[in-house]
Formats: sequence, structure tokens, C-alpha cells
Amino acid sequence: MRFLHTADWHIGRKLYGYNLIEEQEHDFKQLTKIALEKNVDAIVIAGDLYDRALPSEDSVNRLNRMIMKLNLRLQKPVLAISGNHDSAVRLNTGREWFKATKYFLNTNLKEAMIPIEFSDTQFFLLPYFQLFQARNFFADETLTDLTIAMQKIIKGMKENFVSGKKHVLVAHFFAAGSIKTDSETKIEVGGLNAVPLDLFNDFDYVALGHLHDVNALHAERIHYSGSLAKLSVSEAKTNKGVWIVDTEPFHTEFVTIKPLNEIVLLQDTYENLTSPKVYTRVANEDFVAITLLDKAVIPNVINNLREFYPKIISLSRKDQIAELPTDEEAVLELDPMTLLENFFEDMTGEKMTKQQKEWANNSLERVIDGDEK
Amino acid sequence: MRFLHTADWHIGRKLYGYNLIEEQEHDFKQLTKIALEKNVDAIVIAGDLYDRALPSEDSVNRLNRMIMKLNLRLQKPVLAISGNHDSAVRLNTGREWFKATKYFLNTNLKEAMIPIEFSDTQFFLLPYFQLFQARNFFADETLTDLTIAMQKIIKGMKENFVSGKKHVLVAHFFAAGSIKTDSETKIEVGGLNAVPLDLFNDFDYVALGHLHDVNALHAERIHYSGSLAKLSVSEAKTNKGVWIVDTEPFHTEFVTIKPLNEIVLLQDTYENLTSPKVYTRVANEDFVAITLLDKAVIPNVINNLREFYPKIISLSRKDQIAELPTDEEAVLELDPMTLLENFFEDMTGEKMTKQQKEWANNSLERVIDGDEK
Repeated sequence: MRFLHTADWHIGRKLYGYNLIEEQEHDFKQLTKIALEKNVDAIVIAGDLYDRALPSEDSVNRLNRMIMKLNLRLQKPVLAISGNHDSAVRLNTGREWFKATKYFLNTNLKEAMIPIEFSDTQFFLLPYFQLFQARNFFADETLTDLTIAMQKIIKGMKENFVSGKKHVLVAHFFAAGSIKTDSETKIEVGGLNAVPLDLFNDFDYVALGHLHDVNALHAERIHYSGSLAKLSVSEAKTNKGVWIVDTEPFHTEFVTIKPLNEIVLLQDTYENLTSPKVYTRVANEDFVAITLLDKAVIPNVINNLREFYPKIISLSRKDQIAELPTDEEAVLELDPMTLLENFFEDMTGEKMTKQQKEWANNSLERVIDGDEK
Repeated sequence: MRFLHTADWHIGRKLYGYNLIEEQEHDFKQLTKIALEKNVDAIVIAGDLYDRALPSEDSVNRLNRMIMKLNLRLQKPVLAISGNHDSAVRLNTGREWFKATKYFLNTNLKEAMIPIEFSDTQFFLLPYFQLFQARNFFADETLTDLTIAMQKIIKGMKENFVSGKKHVLVAHFFAAGSIKTDSETKIEVGGLNAVPLDLFNDFDYVALGHLHDVNALHAERIHYSGSLAKLSVSEAKTNKGVWIVDTEPFHTEFVTIKPLNEIVLLQDTYENLTSPKVYTRVANEDFVAITLLDKAVIPNVINNLREFYPKIISLSRKDQIAELPTDEEAVLELDPMTLLENFFEDMTGEKMTKQQKEWANNSLERVIDGDEK
């Protein structure tokens, strides 16, 4: 059979304050297009459908419509698990009804060992779990090691292997030897909770979720699909897309999805950044991460840069800022409140509100009057 | 056909701080028992399934299991709408899949006019809505009157009436002339949003939700089922239960459900309340609302009473408390902090925390030292 492997949709996610809804709807549209063009027999979603355990009404609505589109409109079987960002309980609602149209959603360990069969393939849906859940499930208080828990789970799965069939594991964890980006929530501590890959030798394919870069892991039959959208600056240069997996003969192909808006990394001086030769090369809708090469203080820097790059998602300096402004005397002539306002703006990129000014003013007055002892 | 009419489950509700989970599970069990004994063809739930738009994971889990029990295990068709306490969007999740097993859930106006047919009956599921939604739906900005909106909606329904069939409306609103308890959230202002009953003359039965007392309205073919559990002191003496409705020949019967724990109203003196002749008559698990007949200050009153009535849900006095304690001099000898602590305890029934004592102490010190000018 042929299936599409995706994960980490993170519906509801923001990129440094910017809503990613348009990006996510765009990516989803591309995904459905690929599913149709490649004529896949099923769609596998390896966790983190939502960005948070308590998704907003809008996110609930969107994800619901996406799954409806795949499962009810296009009539594709969907196999999904909960990730560390999902609330297993909330995602689970309605699950018993979903099966009728081959939407198989698993959020608990109990059913991970029971295969879901399609033509030549057995799928095992292992949701993200915490060790205490494995302890409860196996009724074994001594189970404090993720690798041992995983061994037990896989043993349980293998007992249900039908020989002659292909075996696919869908899971959401940090695989040993993988490389992270900045947008995954850490679910392992000090590498202790990384899962060694040799546990999975008996599977024909392991469809992973959790890491957001498709290149996080290089293994022939164990893949992260990566997130659908770019979720952090560190993903600026990674490819996004989905895996198309054929079980017989075994073949995988990564089909890329072009983002609606790019994350552009700029490292330059303020002067260059504000000159047409640089800013005309960046689309207005692109997210921009800037590393300033200047050392001098630049008043109101982020607001000025926003005139050229409306969607700045990060602003840092390559070198430490020079300690005193060049025009030292001019600065010393400014009154404390103006200095504070400028500082606030430099740091936050926002003007102080009336209330903030009032607070600042009161504090300054008390300091100046020596009222605060 | 014969159906069961219930509403206002309010899963997740608390009664003055007390969890009602056990009560609600008990009531639900009785409901399923009645559904089986009466061999109903369907179960109608007229809104407010949850107590809040953002139910807890536990509430989500419980409601999901309840509906699964009715619809999947007992294979009873379920017809439900969202009430003013439900988030239409959240409740709506999975809805498209529910239909396959005859679980019809409607949370939007658009589908209220489309009947769901069972043997001899057409059901119209009208969720709770706000006027702006009716304005959007009818694309009529001048629609500022609930009665007119309701007329339009009912006109839309009637256009789909099949003659010879029975017509049942399931809805969630405040019907004109009804009497409220203290536990409904007001969705009408100054009676303006009360819906006149003559609008519903063409329906064979109107299954209402919103008001929690089954006796809120006396009309032959328009009934509130009332809430399943007692949700406020004012419901102490009301009957709880469900309607069993036969469409042909038309017949309704209210089948009561005995609460797991009662709400007991006590009006007596402190002396009597703490004597066995009174307290032995009240079960430990019952919720108790006390009206004290004393006029004197009684130190630590609620904590003392809790030794006899562990689940006090309200404590009030019939008459104003006497302004000065009888043992005036003894009180005047107490230091301010002890006075404050006693007062806090009398008012809240709780001892001050360490942090609260610290705050109180600091404030008292500043007052006494005259630091606060």
C-alpha cells in the first residue's frame, strides 16, 4: 500500500507573536493536493495535531475541518496519534464514532498493541506517553526507563504481528541521534529519554513525529516528517513537506511543500538593511530574523526596521552593543523620563502606554525626591 | 414514537464548591435505567450538556462516555443541541461522524430548519443562539428582536413540515411566563428576550432546556425537563427527572430520579442545630443550607456547624446580627489581630493562612503606628 506520512501540524501555533493560520491552511491544502496526486491509500499523522492541550475554538474548528476534508470528503483513511502537545483526553472525544469511516485515532497505550490492518500492512499507533503511564499500564512500579518501557510495548506489538504482512509503527518521541530545532518542546532530559533506534528493526517503516526538521534523523526506514510549517528561526532553511511511503516494493519519497511565506535570515548593518538594495529583495509577507552588525545604539531600531520589514520575528546583534552611545553629551541632556521611554522602545519595540508612563513617572519622582529610602 | 426528554446536565458543575460528579453519574445511571425500562426510541437532550464553554478534561471524558453509553452501547438515537453554557464550536467537534450511529447534534442555526425524521416524527434541533447569529444567518441587520428572529426560524421549520407527521421542537431558551431558580445563567434582559409560547402552537411537543425546575412552566405540550441534578439551594424541594413523551397517542409522563444526596434546608437556632434531635435527622452526605435564627455573634460558627453538617452549602441569618456582641467587655479586651482573625473566620468559615496573617499584621501595625497618613 501507499500512504502519506505527516506530523506536527501544531494548529494554533504562533511564530513569535504572528498567527500561522494562513500558513497552516496553505500547507494543508498542498498536503491534500499531494495526497490526491499520489493517490495514497491512507494518511498517517504522527502527533502534535494541536499546538496546545487546550486549543482555542478557532483551532478546534480548523483541525476538525481538516480531518473532515481528508476522511469524509476525500474518503481517505486517517491514522493519527496524540503528541506531547495534544491533550489525549480532549483529542480522544468522539473517537469511537470515527472508526466507522476509517479515521483511527489513538491516544492511549492500551490500544497501541492492537494493529489496524489495511491490505498488506499492519499499523501500530503509539501515542506520546509519559513513563508513569507505562508504569500504570504494565502495573510495574519499577519501570523508570523509557527504553525498557518501549521494549515492552514493542514486544506487545510483535505478538500481534501477522507474518507476510508489512508492519508500520506510528509514534511520537525523540529518537536517539536526532538533531533538534528550536521549536520542539523538550520531552527528554539529558538525552536519557531518547529512544535507541535498534528497537525498531522489525518494523518495515517507522513514521515519527516530534522533531520539526525532516533531516533530524537519517535512517532508511525511520523518518520524521517534520512540521508542516516553519515554526522557528532555526527552521528557516529546512525543507517542509510529507513522506510518500510505498510498502511493496519499499520506497519512500519526500514531497516538498513550498511555504506560503518564507522565514528570511538577514545579517547586515542598519544602513544596508534600510537601503533598497537589501529590503527590495524581501517580500512584505515574509517573516524576517535580523542580526545587526552595528555596535552603536540605534534609537527606536525595531520600529524603524519594521517600516522595511513588517514581520520581524527576531532582532539580535552579532556583537555586544557599545556601552555608551556615541553622542554621549546629547544623551546626558535628555531628561530621565525621555531616556526611560527611549530605552523601553529600544528593548521592546513598543511605545509605553499611558499607564506605563504614569507608573514610570511616579517611580522616577520618588527616586528623585528621595522618598524611597 | 416514544422518546426521553432531558436537558441541563451541566457536567462539571459545582454546588457552592462541592463537586457534583457523583451526583451526576448517579443521575445519569438512573436516566439510562429509565430509558431502557420505558423502551424509548430516542433520547433528546435540550442543551447545556456541559456547565462551561471550556470544560475540564474530566468533564469532556465523562460526557463523552455518557453519550457513548446511550448511543453506542445501548444503541439509542440521541438528539442534542448546545445550550448557553456549551461552546457550540467545541461541542460540535466530531459531529459529522456522529450521524452514522444516529447521534444528531446540532450547534448552529443553519441546520435547525432541517428536520431529523424518526418513524412518525420530525425533530427540529434549535441550539441556543444569540441575536447577532440570527442577524448573520438571515443577513438582516435590522433583526434586533428575539421574538421576530424566532418567528423567522419557525417559519423556516414549517416549510419543511411533512403533513401527517408529528413535529417536535428541541430548543434552549427562556419561555415567557416561566419561573426561574437561582442556578440558571440569565440569557434574557428584563424579560425582553423571553419567547412567547404561542409561536409554538404548530408543534406537537416542545422539549425545552435552560430552566432547571421542571415546574418552571405549565403548558401541556411545552415542557422544561429541568436539570438532572439539584444545582442551587432554590431547587432543594423541586423534583428531578425526565419526561417520557409518546407522540401517538400524545402522552407525557414525568419520571422522577431520586438524587444521590439531598439539599436539606434548616432554619433553627444554633443550640437546636447542634443538638442530636436535629442533626441526627440529616445524612452526612446531604448538602445543607442553614438559616440561623440567632441574633448573637457565634464565634467560629460555620466550622462548629460543620462538625454536625459536613457539607454546608450556605449559611445565613433570618434577622440582622446584633450589632455588639453580648459579652462586650470580653471582646474589647482582645487584641486587634485576634479580633480580625475571629471576624475573618466568622465571615468566611476559614482560618487565615500564614500569608494572610502576615498581610493583616503589617496593615494593623501601620495603622497603629500611624504610618499611613
